[in-house]
Amino acid sequence: MDYSQFFSAALNRLHEERRYRVFADLERIAGRFPHALWHSPKGPRNVVIWCSNDYLGMGQHPRVVGAMVETATRVGTGAGGTRNIAGTHHPLVQLEAELADLHGKQASLLFTSGYVSNQTGIATIAKLIPNCLILSDALNHNSMIEGVRQAGCERQIFRHNDVEHLEQLLIAAGPDRPKLIACESLYSMDGDVAPLAKICDLAEKYGAMTYVDEVHAVGMYGPRGGGIAERDGVMHRIDVLEGTLAKAFGCLGGYIAGNADIIDAVRSYAPGFIFTTALPPAICSAATAAIRHLKTSSWERERHQDRAARVKAILNAAGLPVMSNDTHIVPLFVGDPEKCKQACDILLEEHGVYIQPINYPTVAKGTERLRITPSPYHDDGLIDGLADALLQVWERLGLPLKQKSLAAE
Amino acid sequence: MDYSQFFSAALNRLHEERRYRVFADLERIAGRFPHALWHSPKGPRNVVIWCSNDYLGMGQHPRVVGAMVETATRVGTGAGGTRNIAGTHHPLVQLEAELADLHGKQASLLFTSGYVSNQTGIATIAKLIPNCLILSDALNHNSMIEGVRQAGCERQIFRHNDVEHLEQLLIAAGPDRPKLIACESLYSMDGDVAPLAKICDLAEKYGAMTYVDEVHAVGMYGPRGGGIAERDGVMHRIDVLEGTLAKAFGCLGGYIAGNADIIDAVRSYAPGFIFTTALPPAICSAATAAIRHLKTSSWERERHQDRAARVKAILNAAGLPVMSNDTHIVPLFVGDPEKCKQACDILLEEHGVYIQPINYPTVAKGTERLRITPSPYHDDGLIDGLADALLQVWERLGLPLKQKSLAAE
Ligand SMILES: Cc1ncc(COP(=O)(O)O)c(C=O)c1O
Ligand SMILES: Cc1ncc(COP(=O)(O)O)c(C=O)c1O
Repeated sequence: MDYSQFFSAALNRLHEERRYRVFADLERIAGRFPHALWHSPKGPRNVVIWCSNDYLGMGQHPRVVGAMVETATRVGTGAGGTRNIAGTHHPLVQLEAELADLHGKQASLLFTSGYVSNQTGIATIAKLIPNCLILSDALNHNSMIEGVRQAGCERQIFRHNDVEHLEQLLIAAGPDRPKLIACESLYSMDGDVAPLAKICDLAEKYGAMTYVDEVHAVGMYGPRGGGIAERDGVMHRIDVLEGTLAKAFGCLGGYIAGNADIIDAVRSYAPGFIFTTALPPAICSAATAAIRHLKTSSWERERHQDRAARVKAILNAAGLPVMSNDTHIVPLFVGDPEKCKQACDILLEEHGVYIQPINYPTVAKGTERLRITPSPYHDDGLIDGLADALLQVWERLGLPLKQKSLAAE
Repeated sequence: MDYSQFFSAALNRLHEERRYRVFADLERIAGRFPHALWHSPKGPRNVVIWCSNDYLGMGQHPRVVGAMVETATRVGTGAGGTRNIAGTHHPLVQLEAELADLHGKQASLLFTSGYVSNQTGIATIAKLIPNCLILSDALNHNSMIEGVRQAGCERQIFRHNDVEHLEQLLIAAGPDRPKLIACESLYSMDGDVAPLAKICDLAEKYGAMTYVDEVHAVGMYGPRGGGIAERDGVMHRIDVLEGTLAKAFGCLGGYIAGNADIIDAVRSYAPGFIFTTALPPAICSAATAAIRHLKTSSWERERHQDRAARVKAILNAAGLPVMSNDTHIVPLFVGDPEKCKQACDILLEEHGVYIQPINYPTVAKGTERLRITPSPYHDDGLIDGLADALLQVWERLGLPLKQKSLAAE
């Protein structure tokens, strides 16, 4: 049997739908972020990264890099085992304590990634609750969807951020049915924020558990970087907070934080936690350094918001179609997969501006966009250069601008 | 509703069945492995690690540590994005080329872990093959089981390493049905090896695809560390090889290697690959250094086998119930979860010997065991000390020894 036909057919489908993805081979330079080398087919070129999720540039922070180097030198590279079998090490134990403290919870549990924490975390929690009904936001991330699916229990989808719809579903489920509400705090493709306080109100009123993904908020919101829930004063009202170490904390790994018994149960039952090698000590030390730094330093958070606001203001003033929100994400509407990819290709090749096109399946078809993520290290000159480059590309591809007069208001 | 009851009940079940796990908090010291610090409840203590899956001690190899330190210093700690969005970096691209070369395949693809590579890799491959039937070895690892489950297609289990049973199932499926055989090369809890050549014969005869997990073999078998398939000369006959960077290569991460179209299809369709942050550059550089070193140096492999043979010989001679196999794993039969845990507690607390008890669900109930993994760095003195400690523990707990005369043969 010719199996390769199935794989080439699958690839052809992507080419036909113009969804075949090409990854840019990048080389960052610590201390010079957002500048980087792009290993293009024609050789290395200097570019400015405008779409990294190392939102605060912590991946190059001297304390974070220093912690990684120090720990690797002292204890070596890998954990050497699963958590149960020789893989639990001191930097990891310290990091779990740091994360529990960050979220004001009794305990936390580390996973290989934020993806894995959602997938095996949600599945395990729901499986331990008899007859659990999961109420899941319509725009939840793929890792949450996979977790919900693996849970194998009944699930209902509430319209995105729609608390009235959520309330209807809670009422319909009845008071005796165990219910788990799963949502994100900050949705990364639109940059909009969940009404966490209202969701907590509903959870308390109707006796539901809450699980909130703060992947795109930890480190960046709240006085100590605890996320949107900390900022909104509702952290203590959420049962399980989930986050990543791979975005604002600049490293790798994911976690959940909550009451000791929930965390201990997930630790004891989650296959995606039990049967895999623990995170390396050097990664854990680096993450701890980043978290500790951001617990007390608010320079990064303030400068981050300032930069995002400036990018939005300048692109808006130029008439570019910024999709509005109140966060650090700057989505620029394109609405066509082919033009979205073309725009990014021209930006990269002719302007040294690296922004990855965001197409289906990451966002719905027809809502293709550029997703710009300014960091504290994108200075005014870079922002002006970005606006110029975008305007040229918009003109060249015949993409629509907003009415100038309106935009300038 | 009181949700905590569900979690405390789940934990109580584990306590009652004596399966509640306590993780040992360890601190390795680069250059001194297998010696380490154990952060015991009573303070730090020196111990010897006898159950690490850093099988060759590469996690402390100067070249590997050096690569990690150099790359972290030069480019920073995290990848900063998913593979598609700013997360593909040069050390990762180089590592994928290195892995393809290691297995003599056209391409390879990296994942966060070996667990994730199996889970999302198997699921994605099977989903792309219409009406696929998965034939899965009965003792496959949990990550493969989850991958098979997520594939959502029909699956049949063949008796462990039983090629006659596998052949029956292949015949029954018929020539027109697409079939995927999934197995490991070296099963880590018993240390037995799959008859890969026979499995390849069957796959070719009946037109099946093959997917082989070499997690416990890569780096350690074959002239360049390509695994059991390389050793047995069948690497080119296997469609997809899967491995980890977290065991013999001493780092973190997992991968698959195969034809370009299969790898590209998994790259393009696997959710567990697409929607998660890429591995950090420093991890990739360290893994590349380990793989390159082991492609040419066979000292580690030879010394590893020598140490494992010596541990087996000495424990056998002492009458300890070594479960026999031809590999580097030394399982010691206990057959009782409580005694298994007790034995390990005494070894750790009184002898400074760290071996984690292997109980259900990692192995079947009634087959609880100690699983000893000698490395190139366990010297004769440590081996003698281990034998003495084990004999004392066996006597104290009234565990049976083999007939001495028989054992000495
Ligand atoms: C909302 C959300 N949750 C979880 C994840 C996964 O986190 P990680 O990259 O640590 O796997 C992502 C993206 O990567 C995400 O956007
Ligand atoms: C056979 C097998 N496959 C896959 C894995 C997972 O590999 P990793 O630790 O890299 O997640 C393991 C154990 O960890 C294993 O024993």
